[in-house]
Amino acid sequence: MGKIFDITLLILILLSIIFVMLESVKGLPIDTYRFLYYGEWVITIFFTFEYVARIISIKKPSRYIFSFYGLIDLLSTLPLYLSFFITGTSALLAVRALRLLRVFRILKISRYIGESNRLARAIKDSGAKILVFLFAVLVLCIIMGTVMYLIEGEESGFKSIPISVYWCIVTMTTVGYGDIAPATPLGQLIAAMIMIVGYGIIAVPTGIVSAEYAADRKSKKVNLNTQVCANCNCSDHRDGAKFCYKCGEDLHNE
Amino acid sequence: MGKIFDITLLILILLSIIFVMLESVKGLPIDTYRFLYYGEWVITIFFTFEYVARIISIKKPSRYIFSFYGLIDLLSTLPLYLSFFITGTSALLAVRALRLLRVFRILKISRYIGESNRLARAIKDSGAKILVFLFAVLVLCIIMGTVMYLIEGEESGFKSIPISVYWCIVTMTTVGYGDIAPATPLGQLIAAMIMIVGYGIIAVPTGIVSAEYAADRKSKKVNLNTQVCANCNCSDHRDGAKFCYKCGEDLHNE
Amino acid sequence: MGKIFDITLLILILLSIIFVMLESVKGLPIDTYRFLYYGEWVITIFFTFEYVARIISIKKPSRYIFSFYGLIDLLSTLPLYLSFFITGTSALLAVRALRLLRVFRILKISRYIGESNRLARAIKDSGAKILVFLFAVLVLCIIMGTVMYLIEGEESGFKSIPISVYWCIVTMTTVGYGDIAPATPLGQLIAAMIMIVGYGIIAVPTGIVSAEYAADRKSKKVNLNTQVCANCNCSDHRDGAKFCYKCGEDLHNE
Amino acid sequence: MGKIFDITLLILILLSIIFVMLESVKGLPIDTYRFLYYGEWVITIFFTFEYVARIISIKKPSRYIFSFYGLIDLLSTLPLYLSFFITGTSALLAVRALRLLRVFRILKISRYIGESNRLARAIKDSGAKILVFLFAVLVLCIIMGTVMYLIEGEESGFKSIPISVYWCIVTMTTVGYGDIAPATPLGQLIAAMIMIVGYGIIAVPTGIVSAEYAADRKSKKVNLNTQVCANCNCSDHRDGAKFCYKCGEDLHNE
Repeated sequence: MGKIFDITLLILILLSIIFVMLESVKGLPIDTYRFLYYGEWVITIFFTFEYVARIISIKKPSRYIFSFYGLIDLLSTLPLYLSFFITGTSALLAVRALRLLRVFRILKISRYIGESNRLARAIKDSGAKILVFLFAVLVLCIIMGTVMYLIEGEESGFKSIPISVYWCIVTMTTVGYGDIAPATPLGQLIAAMIMIVGYGIIAVPTGIVSAEYAADRKSKKVNLNTQVCANCNCSDHRDGAKFCYKCGEDLHNE
Repeated sequence: MGKIFDITLLILILLSIIFVMLESVKGLPIDTYRFLYYGEWVITIFFTFEYVARIISIKKPSRYIFSFYGLIDLLSTLPLYLSFFITGTSALLAVRALRLLRVFRILKISRYIGESNRLARAIKDSGAKILVFLFAVLVLCIIMGTVMYLIEGEESGFKSIPISVYWCIVTMTTVGYGDIAPATPLGQLIAAMIMIVGYGIIAVPTGIVSAEYAADRKSKKVNLNTQVCANCNCSDHRDGAKFCYKCGEDLHNE
Repeated sequence: MGKIFDITLLILILLSIIFVMLESVKGLPIDTYRFLYYGEWVITIFFTFEYVARIISIKKPSRYIFSFYGLIDLLSTLPLYLSFFITGTSALLAVRALRLLRVFRILKISRYIGESNRLARAIKDSGAKILVFLFAVLVLCIIMGTVMYLIEGEESGFKSIPISVYWCIVTMTTVGYGDIAPATPLGQLIAAMIMIVGYGIIAVPTGIVSAEYAADRKSKKVNLNTQVCANCNCSDHRDGAKFCYKCGEDLHNE
Repeated sequence: MGKIFDITLLILILLSIIFVMLESVKGLPIDTYRFLYYGEWVITIFFTFEYVARIISIKKPSRYIFSFYGLIDLLSTLPLYLSFFITGTSALLAVRALRLLRVFRILKISRYIGESNRLARAIKDSGAKILVFLFAVLVLCIIMGTVMYLIEGEESGFKSIPISVYWCIVTMTTVGYGDIAPATPLGQLIAAMIMIVGYGIIAVPTGIVSAEYAADRKSKKVNLNTQVCANCNCSDHRDGAKFCYKCGEDLHNE
């Protein structure tokens, strides 16, 4: 029963995301937009029922409402209703933005992926070090962006320091759009140096995560399911667990 | 004898791939196209004989026919024959597509590379974790793509959400074509943030594979050959093996 | 008290960087530029007081003045005063360059990040090996750039060997602007080979850092604060330290 | 004495490379080209003396002549002399190519970098596995390139299968020039998938090198010098060595 409910929800989430994306495409037949509009309402009403059912079925609703998934679930239903009440031509952009907020529904899906918790923890463990590293990269980009602004000037597209810093980030991360590119020999020399350095330091966060992950890898793995505790709403219980691991509530599994 | 057959086959596979590629190039002398056409038929007939010989020489042909290599071998011969029977001008694209399917012949080559099995196993081992990671990247791209669609609008090329998501994937994976690039200051700021984040999280799959590979590395290495068992058609026997390691069939090596 | 001073300084540094960047943006209201100008002077005077205070409060000022942070602190104040004294229209560029030197103030921020020392040490440890590697990449780029210059010629943008080497660095580091791209079949073939090789060797510095970092990881972590020793001006003391770890000076902590 | 000779040689190599590069730049004063021309001859004559001296001073010249450094040393001198003897306007390109061969002189420099041997060995150790991996990437690129050729067609720049494969390599290695980019929705979807896959598999060679390097790291380090054995011409002796480690020849160090 719970399995079927889960799969239905999963399909509805994916359908909803596809609807949001298709809605923004121009040039489709007018019937398609009408179908997307009504389909969207059906899905939103379903999500509303799910949200209300979750609040009713657990003992401390406030804990759920302000949890990560509670906020995501609210965000998945409210915007469409709100967009219905806002009127007037000037509020058009606000309505459009609200409707697009539905895309955050995709985060509901993370409930169904057991591995995602482990991955999130691994990122969290090495997060502080990687943040320091990314900050160092940013500092380097601000300094080199200013230098390139001075050397290249406005002719090559380096119109201001913020634009130059943007270019430096695009280059250092090896994205390289090519909308802005150095044109003077000196600028190209320094750009080449920035690239070589960027190539060398990309190794640092990788090394950090490798070492952390290798250390984390020895921890055991257990299978978790998506059953929700009626008391505290936490959802990652071990398969076969009889009591909630957080609050001790009976999970009513025989 | 088997060695010579193997090398002939290898050369024919490579020749065939070069033929398929050259056929699509415009502006060559007309004699070249005629040569490619006849050469293609010769190679296809050779592959047909190989396919039939394999089916005849083993005891349970059905097991071979539905195996990975069996399907590849079939795919290497059938399309050209089929393209011969399809007529009418409307079927031109289908014929062209069928003829291009011959490019899959290159997968026949994997039979001759002993290391490829080990590599495939290493990817398989860490595959589930990397898939979860890639899925997380995709979720992030859908959300950020929608945000950029709202900020940049159609003037900068962000015509619809699917296009914006495509742009976000191009940026996050550091490919960076430059056919679509943010033009507003706010859009460039968010793009810079996406790049910095993409630069930081590229470390995650690398860390996973490093740790898995280091653990896998201690397994021993043996030399395998391409001799085929007459009973079960499996092909990676140890050098000097007398019986098939899967079904126990005598390999007739003295 | 020291905490409040630290936070004030941090905010001033960030403000100053934002001021330098905004100053270069064209098209803002004229009042904004005036505000930036006066704001800049206020911050510079504050930094001057900080610099003088640091020199007075320690016993051996010369050691501080010629240290890394001492030079950064000097560089954060002097340029603006100097730009005030240089006159004449021909000196305009020099003044502009001097004013932009203020961007180096961002390095003052590294004092407040405990992790940065560890990161710097990790980079230093594997620095020699990565330098050799980057040098090898450079040698490869010079050779391949010359080859591409010979093959592609001036029509495709490979105007001289330095430009070709620049293109090769852009390609090898996977930045790929697209301002210069090979147009002949042979050039594209060699470019593809360069990319595949670049893709393979990016693994080398990563492997080096991973191994070094994993070895370095076992060293213990202690909390350091930003308190400055009155004698030798070194600033990374352990929390609760009573004497300077470098010169033994009493830190006057009860 | 040997130290001074080494440094002189190093400077001459670097000067020579700069000369080759500058020679290709258009628009410099005519005196510069004349200076480069005569400077080039001086350096080449110096290298010729070095080459002859090396052959005379060792007992078995043939072993040196056909060694890696012997061939590099020959390549550093011969082309300029040959270009002198080739006459006629039709041989202009050959002369230009010969003259550019001088860029290989930069490989002479590797003699002076002790670490480079270790790096080369590390790459060699994991070379076979990385080659298999790169081959797998190539196979994937050929298949996906053919698929993209079929989907996109000539309008988007996918003119032939070789061009499509080139595009696929540019994309998979995350270089992304943008000279060719998919324009149809289906093409962009498949391109996005190729990028995501490329992002995932870049981890594989990194993981391989990390594991190999970590295993190799425990080997001890000794200081080597560039002194050459008079008998076998090998050059990486330990500091203070009295006899050649390869042939046992007396090195005449007191």
